[in-house]
Amino acid sequence: MGRVSAQQRPEVAFQDRYPDSYAHCYGCGRLNDDGLHVASHWLTVGEEAVCHFRPADRYSGGMPGNAYGGIIASLMDCHAAGTAAAAAAEADGVPETEPVPRFVTASLRVDYLAPTPLGTTLEIRARVREMSGRKVLLGLTLGPAGAQPTATGEAVMVRLRDDPPPA
Amino acid sequence: MGRVSAQQRPEVAFQDRYPDSYAHCYGCGRLNDDGLHVASHWLTVGEEAVCHFRPADRYSGGMPGNAYGGIIASLMDCHAAGTAAAAAAEADGVPETEPVPRFVTASLRVDYLAPTPLGTTLEIRARVREMSGRKVLLGLTLGPAGAQPTATGEAVMVRLRDDPPPA
Repeated sequence: MGRVSAQQRPEVAFQDRYPDSYAHCYGCGRLNDDGLHVASHWLTVGEEAVCHFRPADRYSGGMPGNAYGGIIASLMDCHAAGTAAAAAAEADGVPETEPVPRFVTASLRVDYLAPTPLGTTLEIRARVREMSGRKVLLGLTLGPAGAQPTATGEAVMVRLRDDPPPA
Repeated sequence: MGRVSAQQRPEVAFQDRYPDSYAHCYGCGRLNDDGLHVASHWLTVGEEAVCHFRPADRYSGGMPGNAYGGIIASLMDCHAAGTAAAAAAEADGVPETEPVPRFVTASLRVDYLAPTPLGTTLEIRARVREMSGRKVLLGLTLGPAGAQPTATGEAVMVRLRDDPPPA
């Protein structure tokens, strides 16, 4: 996909709101031409967010047809970071189309409950559990859209102190 | 790289010993032409294993120059799975060039301690902490080779019950 302007999407995703100098992530950066371009939106503003993503077949585990652990962790990581950023912006009263602060991952835990199939759209959900100072704790689920989760997770995201450097 | 036969490597990596039908992982499968081809070897047989890997620049986090969380989790995941497999084979008395059983990830936790730089070779280490029935618990570190770890982790790997399906 490459560079994606907010105008090309039906809604502005959290990741569209990262300042340019923070938008290079392989998982979710709109300025990373080779990346996955994870895009997250609120289900319930400030509380729960969703991301839909269909991994390419190459992201298989040991056997073809199921996702490998790393892509599951990657999707959770970027969705959680975006949700933390949007939640912090919401708490700060920032309008929903304005830039969000950048969070980085302090810790990520993933529990793999069952094989996650490829060839279908996955739904990743993040729920804000706690916000305290620069930290946001989130609970995560991932699985085929409309089905039971095949993985759950928990992430601690930390807000960067600094203003973004020049893009 | 694509298909890598054991003969092309100076040593046989754990992942070279997966049966063909289990060797399709994006992170470590020798039969995944698009994958990362993580390759792990013993430092101390049955106890601690090492993997060296230099991520491409595209695997950056929000800012260029540092690795994104997902690639760090991916490298730990595949290195831990391979180490669990090799440890189980060792415990079963399987010679070091013979096939290993396949393990899948039950859980993975990563603590991100500091930014992990790109443009350099990373060293990932896995230490076998416990083996019990079909489960292997491993402690993990990751960081620039020769420097302090920038991330630590813990993985629980579970051995597949079944024999490999036809390749």
